[in-house]
Amino acid sequence: MFEFITLERGGVDGVDKRVATLTLNRPEAMNAYHVAMKDEILTALDEVDADDSVAALVVTGAGRAFCAGMDLSNPEAFSRRDETEAERRRDSGGYIALRLYDLTKPVIGAINGAAVGVGVTMTLPMDIRLASTKAKFGFVFSRRGIVLETASSWFLPRLVGPQQAAEWAYTGRVFDAAEALRGGLVRSLHEPDELLPAAYALAEEIAANTAPVSVALNRQLLLRGLGYDHPMRSHIAESRAMYERGRSKDMDEGVASFLEKRSAVYPNTVPADLPDVFDDWDPPAFRI
Amino acid sequence: MFEFITLERGGVDGVDKRVATLTLNRPEAMNAYHVAMKDEILTALDEVDADDSVAALVVTGAGRAFCAGMDLSNPEAFSRRDETEAERRRDSGGYIALRLYDLTKPVIGAINGAAVGVGVTMTLPMDIRLASTKAKFGFVFSRRGIVLETASSWFLPRLVGPQQAAEWAYTGRVFDAAEALRGGLVRSLHEPDELLPAAYALAEEIAANTAPVSVALNRQLLLRGLGYDHPMRSHIAESRAMYERGRSKDMDEGVASFLEKRSAVYPNTVPADLPDVFDDWDPPAFRI
Amino acid sequence: MFEFITLERGGVDGVDKRVATLTLNRPEAMNAYHVAMKDEILTALDEVDADDSVAALVVTGAGRAFCAGMDLSNPEAFSRRDETEAERRRDSGGYIALRLYDLTKPVIGAINGAAVGVGVTMTLPMDIRLASTKAKFGFVFSRRGIVLETASSWFLPRLVGPQQAAEWAYTGRVFDAAEALRGGLVRSLHEPDELLPAAYALAEEIAANTAPVSVALNRQLLLRGLGYDHPMRSHIAESRAMYERGRSKDMDEGVASFLEKRSAVYPNTVPADLPDVFDDWDPPAFRI
Repeated sequence: MFEFITLERGGVDGVDKRVATLTLNRPEAMNAYHVAMKDEILTALDEVDADDSVAALVVTGAGRAFCAGMDLSNPEAFSRRDETEAERRRDSGGYIALRLYDLTKPVIGAINGAAVGVGVTMTLPMDIRLASTKAKFGFVFSRRGIVLETASSWFLPRLVGPQQAAEWAYTGRVFDAAEALRGGLVRSLHEPDELLPAAYALAEEIAANTAPVSVALNRQLLLRGLGYDHPMRSHIAESRAMYERGRSKDMDEGVASFLEKRSAVYPNTVPADLPDVFDDWDPPAFRI
Repeated sequence: MFEFITLERGGVDGVDKRVATLTLNRPEAMNAYHVAMKDEILTALDEVDADDSVAALVVTGAGRAFCAGMDLSNPEAFSRRDETEAERRRDSGGYIALRLYDLTKPVIGAINGAAVGVGVTMTLPMDIRLASTKAKFGFVFSRRGIVLETASSWFLPRLVGPQQAAEWAYTGRVFDAAEALRGGLVRSLHEPDELLPAAYALAEEIAANTAPVSVALNRQLLLRGLGYDHPMRSHIAESRAMYERGRSKDMDEGVASFLEKRSAVYPNTVPADLPDVFDDWDPPAFRI
Repeated sequence: MFEFITLERGGVDGVDKRVATLTLNRPEAMNAYHVAMKDEILTALDEVDADDSVAALVVTGAGRAFCAGMDLSNPEAFSRRDETEAERRRDSGGYIALRLYDLTKPVIGAINGAAVGVGVTMTLPMDIRLASTKAKFGFVFSRRGIVLETASSWFLPRLVGPQQAAEWAYTGRVFDAAEALRGGLVRSLHEPDELLPAAYALAEEIAANTAPVSVALNRQLLLRGLGYDHPMRSHIAESRAMYERGRSKDMDEGVASFLEKRSAVYPNTVPADLPDVFDDWDPPAFRI
């Protein structure tokens, strides 16, 4: 099915079956990125979104690296021969960023090793990033004569603040996991063997305890909220979401399980039961 | 006057009379929230705003809890029987958030115990949050089948960053004061007996040293500035505010007291002397 | 040439000649600010922007202070006698903030001592702030009866978060370097003798390793990205920037030097080779 990645649903030993895993899988090339890998990532994200049995996604890399960046040895790394001029004028990493922005499942990045260039910028639209103590990071674009991509100029300053974003983006330096933690890029560091278990523990905490429709709505509310110019816009969307949820079986179960001090079993799934509470929100369209 | 809260102006022993205190006051129910409490909070905030003698507001809870969230035992917790369908479709916590956003007095939250659900989201539009070492927090909505409310999807990612916001919103976990401090939700922790004194010390630092009109304008500038797409919009509002203030008696007193190395006594008050420097700014209206 | 500042290009002993230094130079008056100094700063920033040999700018103060704020002893501190009423209605510090926002060279603030009032707000649109352990800071406006200026109500909450911004802006307190570091205002503290060397080391790290056009584009992308309501807008600008850079000699050199494991020598300079990738972006205009 996939050549450059793997996608496991309900397939990792001992992990909650509602947690899927997307693995960048070119370990012989440090999982270096090219547009064919991008296409597979987009397909995998579409599948995750469409699969009502998936409650959370973990993204990691096979082998020593997470993703060493663009595969400079591949002449079709940036664009395929058959792309139109318009396609060639569009940053390919941006497709991943915007797809992750629109995803309805929570995404946890488990950064197991080097995450450089697009290898780190593709993790910014994920929700939570955990890293190995051996991971390395680099927004190296200014050292290659190119620029921030994968919509990282939108995500990075919001994640780590404009001062830290400027230092990493201007110097283009490669930095270690401790600097990534101090700067707020990753949420926690873990010994290499303990990284995936920690990522799965967090994914399972979500999958086991929460209503997927609620998580999907919260994800959309938080990401759109970051762009709204006034809290009224969030209030409008929240009011719609709360109204829909207030009539749901999930809420009945959420309240009942809380009062009965037992685990909840939420009947609603995503996408089957996800209401559209942003129908008034027209995202901007791409243009050259 | 009030049944579910108290509002003291100039009435707390030993505290600057310009500092008002709003206390959630259903200690037998852990100050659980319902729409009747919301109405009283709105009335109290209107009174604080209209009272020229109030320079700062402290908000806290009576008894062990700050606010344990929505009162699930009360059939009118979410909406009263006499509400219209349109009213029922509007998140009630959002009224508090938007009222706090528009408030012209600085607000300090003194979170004395559990702050869960709307109990924590109602503190986000306050300016500064102090907490007891015994406080607990939880954005538990996804564990009840519902969603972020009280415009928290706008405030939370700006306060603690999108990564921390996602973790708390998706897991719905209840977390302790140390995690709240590390995550940037609260500004400082205090032993239970020292919480209110610390909150009052900060409120008095503002009330005793600063011009209320300046503080009110700074509050509006900072909150609106968070939503502006370009610093020019802040520059326009600041220019208007500075022009008005530059002709004020407060500025004469501010400069004179500084040069004379004495405490200032500012003659201008809020709302009496507050100019409208945002008359070009149309906040969005609510709609279903 | 300048009376109240100095501008050195390629002139500081032992420092990379591509690093310029702007020094506030009224040490007898703690580098206090007036509109004539503002005019010189704007002229210096224009020169830095227009000079293709400058890759980074360090801003510091002569003597003990960085800038003690508005020069209250000078009747023309706020506005000159010959200014029109419209000019007088515009905050003069805002010119510096907006000029820095539009600058195409990275700016590192080396805050060597007191930075109070406009002395600190003028540093916020700089990219990275280093400070002496002896520095003092104060957003003292509310203690003078005036308000946040120099577009600081836009920059400050984005830099340090709304909670810390509120505390500093409302109390107007003067605080020390350790509080500035904890609050995220400055990136690092240094012994007084080591401050300028540290600032130059960072400026040289940028100048020696990166393509100036890439740094200029990254700077514009990050600052504009902070205001965009949706990542698509950043993606559009990044796509244009990447397309231009992908055809540049800088990218050829960046990739070749990386593969050959040698230092890069980038042929393109700013402003000569800087593309306009924001031609669709109309910044708002000033009005009273």
